[in-house]
Amino acid sequence: MAHIKLPEGLPGIRGPMAFRPETAKPLNELAEVLLRSENSLSRGDRELIATFVSSLNDCFFCQNAHGGLAQHYLQCDMNFIDKVKAEYESTSISDKLKTLLSIAASVQKGGKHVTPEQIEKAKEEGATEREIHDTVLIAAAFCMYNRYVDGLATWAPQDRQIYIDRGPRRAAEGYIDFDLYK
Amino acid sequence: MAHIKLPEGLPGIRGPMAFRPETAKPLNELAEVLLRSENSLSRGDRELIATFVSSLNDCFFCQNAHGGLAQHYLQCDMNFIDKVKAEYESTSISDKLKTLLSIAASVQKGGKHVTPEQIEKAKEEGATEREIHDTVLIAAAFCMYNRYVDGLATWAPQDRQIYIDRGPRRAAEGYIDFDLYK
Repeated sequence: MAHIKLPEGLPGIRGPMAFRPETAKPLNELAEVLLRSENSLSRGDRELIATFVSSLNDCFFCQNAHGGLAQHYLQCDMNFIDKVKAEYESTSISDKLKTLLSIAASVQKGGKHVTPEQIEKAKEEGATEREIHDTVLIAAAFCMYNRYVDGLATWAPQDRQIYIDRGPRRAAEGYIDFDLYK
Repeated sequence: MAHIKLPEGLPGIRGPMAFRPETAKPLNELAEVLLRSENSLSRGDRELIATFVSSLNDCFFCQNAHGGLAQHYLQCDMNFIDKVKAEYESTSISDKLKTLLSIAASVQKGGKHVTPEQIEKAKEEGATEREIHDTVLIAAAFCMYNRYVDGLATWAPQDRQIYIDRGPRRAAEGYIDFDLYK
């Protein structure tokens, strides 16, 4: 049971967003700019960073909701997403994305864990300053979203297939103006 | 030196905000709604929660920028702010605010650290559901802002008095439409 009385039947972050639409607005706008708007990092790669950080924070709802989106964009299966979470170094993702996931993992521990060597490596693999900026902010933002979802003990469906099935519709609707109740 | 090339002379979060105004917009709007807009929690109490969480995350810029605002709103001195950070239980803040700081401290560790007992205690001290919601989200949001500031290794003035002197102007200008370069 959630820590506060949230509208029933809304999974994860959608409950508190319906409870407090004034804060939902900038939270959704931030997700839209970071994860969907024009960027040299693909939507799939950005959703993968979000999924990875949510996994490090052990947030079931976020890692599955964003994992479903990453799977849709990257046209891969759940095993691939799970392997990235568990041991991304040994997957077929690009060397650049590996250096960005390494930075994201440090941000998840705390901002000061990011080292100049990690940044240097990312630049060597072709990461731009904006890609590094966006990786840090995506990782930081999911340290917020994950805590918001779990700090209020929100409800989430436990069947992971549900999130995969919803991926395409979530990709089509985006983070703004979607129907909270669908 | 910051990890990416940021506009010079802008302290803390202002550097990356000038670097990427598209993400600065929702970040500032979120701070405005959470910390300044109509609320049964005073602006001083909300800035104190932000300062406390920033202190737990060891973010020098945020704990001093928001500490300066808390000090202005609460009309207290730096020693009081420092005492709240170090041992809030023994300060003169209200019992309700103590229960909210306890929840904020748990959120800082990770969402799942918040217990039903902490929520129960907050309600016993008169905290409303919205106050609990906002406390969780303020704490979660500062886990983002702090990581954003330190994850990019931004520069910040080390003289704490500067932040105190700036408190009144920051309180007057708010988080939206302020001049980044002042």
